[in-house]
Amino acid sequence: MGKLLLRALKREAVARPPMWLMRQAGRYLPEYLETRKQAGDFLNLCYTPALATEVTLQPIRRFGFDAAILFSDILVLPHALGMKVWFEAGEGPKLGALDKPAAVTMLEKADIHSHLAPVYETLDRLKTALPAETTLIGFCGAPWTVATYMLEGGGSKDFKTAKTWLYADPKGFDALLDLLVQKSADYLDAQIRAGAEVVQIFDSWAGALSPFGFERAVLEPLLALCRKIKAKHPDAPIILFPRGVHPHQLEHLVEKGTGLFDGLGLDTTQDMAWANRILQPQIAIQGNLDPIALYAPIDKVEKKVRHLLDTCGHEPGYIFNLGHGITPQTPIANVERLAETVRSFKAGAY
Amino acid sequence: MGKLLLRALKREAVARPPMWLMRQAGRYLPEYLETRKQAGDFLNLCYTPALATEVTLQPIRRFGFDAAILFSDILVLPHALGMKVWFEAGEGPKLGALDKPAAVTMLEKADIHSHLAPVYETLDRLKTALPAETTLIGFCGAPWTVATYMLEGGGSKDFKTAKTWLYADPKGFDALLDLLVQKSADYLDAQIRAGAEVVQIFDSWAGALSPFGFERAVLEPLLALCRKIKAKHPDAPIILFPRGVHPHQLEHLVEKGTGLFDGLGLDTTQDMAWANRILQPQIAIQGNLDPIALYAPIDKVEKKVRHLLDTCGHEPGYIFNLGHGITPQTPIANVERLAETVRSFKAGAY
Repeated sequence: MGKLLLRALKREAVARPPMWLMRQAGRYLPEYLETRKQAGDFLNLCYTPALATEVTLQPIRRFGFDAAILFSDILVLPHALGMKVWFEAGEGPKLGALDKPAAVTMLEKADIHSHLAPVYETLDRLKTALPAETTLIGFCGAPWTVATYMLEGGGSKDFKTAKTWLYADPKGFDALLDLLVQKSADYLDAQIRAGAEVVQIFDSWAGALSPFGFERAVLEPLLALCRKIKAKHPDAPIILFPRGVHPHQLEHLVEKGTGLFDGLGLDTTQDMAWANRILQPQIAIQGNLDPIALYAPIDKVEKKVRHLLDTCGHEPGYIFNLGHGITPQTPIANVERLAETVRSFKAGAY
Repeated sequence: MGKLLLRALKREAVARPPMWLMRQAGRYLPEYLETRKQAGDFLNLCYTPALATEVTLQPIRRFGFDAAILFSDILVLPHALGMKVWFEAGEGPKLGALDKPAAVTMLEKADIHSHLAPVYETLDRLKTALPAETTLIGFCGAPWTVATYMLEGGGSKDFKTAKTWLYADPKGFDALLDLLVQKSADYLDAQIRAGAEVVQIFDSWAGALSPFGFERAVLEPLLALCRKIKAKHPDAPIILFPRGVHPHQLEHLVEKGTGLFDGLGLDTTQDMAWANRILQPQIAIQGNLDPIALYAPIDKVEKKVRHLLDTCGHEPGYIFNLGHGITPQTPIANVERLAETVRSFKAGAY
């Protein structure tokens, strides 16, 4: 027995796969929009434990998902490192961009924990507020992805500043990645101590790099981060989500990361029959319904959910999720049908 | 003998690989900015043969690239189909978005050729203006990529409108793709008759889809388009550039497309040692230096160019290019060094 998500991450046989959705607490929910309005600023929502707890719980109440993911943002870490971070309505996040190597030394000295105390308090509250069967997931951004925001001053199309530094001076760039590995490890360590039972590391821009860049800026820092977490918390499962990378890079990551992480999030472009055959015997896999498929007529949604369950749900080590975050206009009835479909699935192989 | 690019596309042994760069006529060149200013509006530059010819020739004069690509935009086709298309400074292109199936029938009736006559005239002028050794490349956008712009009304992060239609009503969506296959074939046919010796089909958003979407909206329409062109112009080489797709999808495309296309453009994320081993024995490959690598110190640029040449340039069927379009602040001296490095390379294997 035990919580479904934890069992799936150990690749134990379960009666049906656990489910949660990336960005499940979000703008498609009217109750989220209500709390968001109360909070005013987006970062204020992240840093106010009562409100962050409330929005984390909302999708659990509504859909009975098997896991709740801490409501926060990957950019609270650079914020805690002393960088300026703000969100403008209708636009992506903005940061006062980092001005290269000298600044790294400065960031090193930051004590992130006092800044992040409200995040830890949110986890502490969630620990008691959640239903007994629901797993609490903490998270952070991967070193490469967080570095791109720090260097570009926000989202980017071509990652010019980050890549130029990486190509011109890979060793110098490593210093920033090393710093982010260390600070992210401290952050996740504190999240686990505060109540996170699983942590997910989001590498949203992992797919933007050349093969050289992937090895150096994605794979190595991700595994270094996992190593640090496992050293302190050998029993806390880690899920990696390197979005947009190629199947052979996923295989390589799984091979090099044996024992270092427990689950692999797969984006919408991945072939789940392949993942079921090649990856799932080694590691738990999570994904990958296209969030936009949730806009289809409700019976098509059910059909697509069933197809995924039939592909991966009969063997141990599958976690139902989307391949990317749920989007703001998603019809709630379709999410309800998704949840019902997963809940009524019977893993037939055992 | 014969033109280097044409020989490489036939996978003949050549003394060194041919080279050209995606978006080689562009904002990193002061002479381009000058002509652009003269033209005023971006579409005016595309539709004024004297100016479009001039900017197409500029990078050939400066760097002696082995191919000139028609200066135009993939959105002149939806424009010719009767859609509203405009470019706002500092933003991406905008279109008066297509309102689903009914509109498709309307677009069907459009006679694209009178609208596109200036494009054909540009090719006609280039045919005589280009040095004898330089190949003239025509192009269009792939059906899927053009469809996304038509449906989203511009660029998109999640392709919500296009994908929703594809998921909800794949057969209905096929009607739009079929229309685009037909009109793109007509357009490329006219380009070839006007002087294009090679055509490249840009599928910039091919990597945004689920495996189902890739088969249906990328692979099938691309091959249908190739079939139509080859039926009329069996000797005109076709290069496909499905950006952001997975290696196994490229293999699948090459396998299903035997005899239907001649070259495959590879984006920056692809492993060229793999491509050299697996794809190059079957088809000419083109790519894939990261455009951002051109911002590195000049000796690092040379090193990266040499590395690519050493990986793929010793066997027939390699075309040097970037993995994506060159970007506006690229240092010209680095492009010069790139061109010198490719020009002085000696394919050692034969």
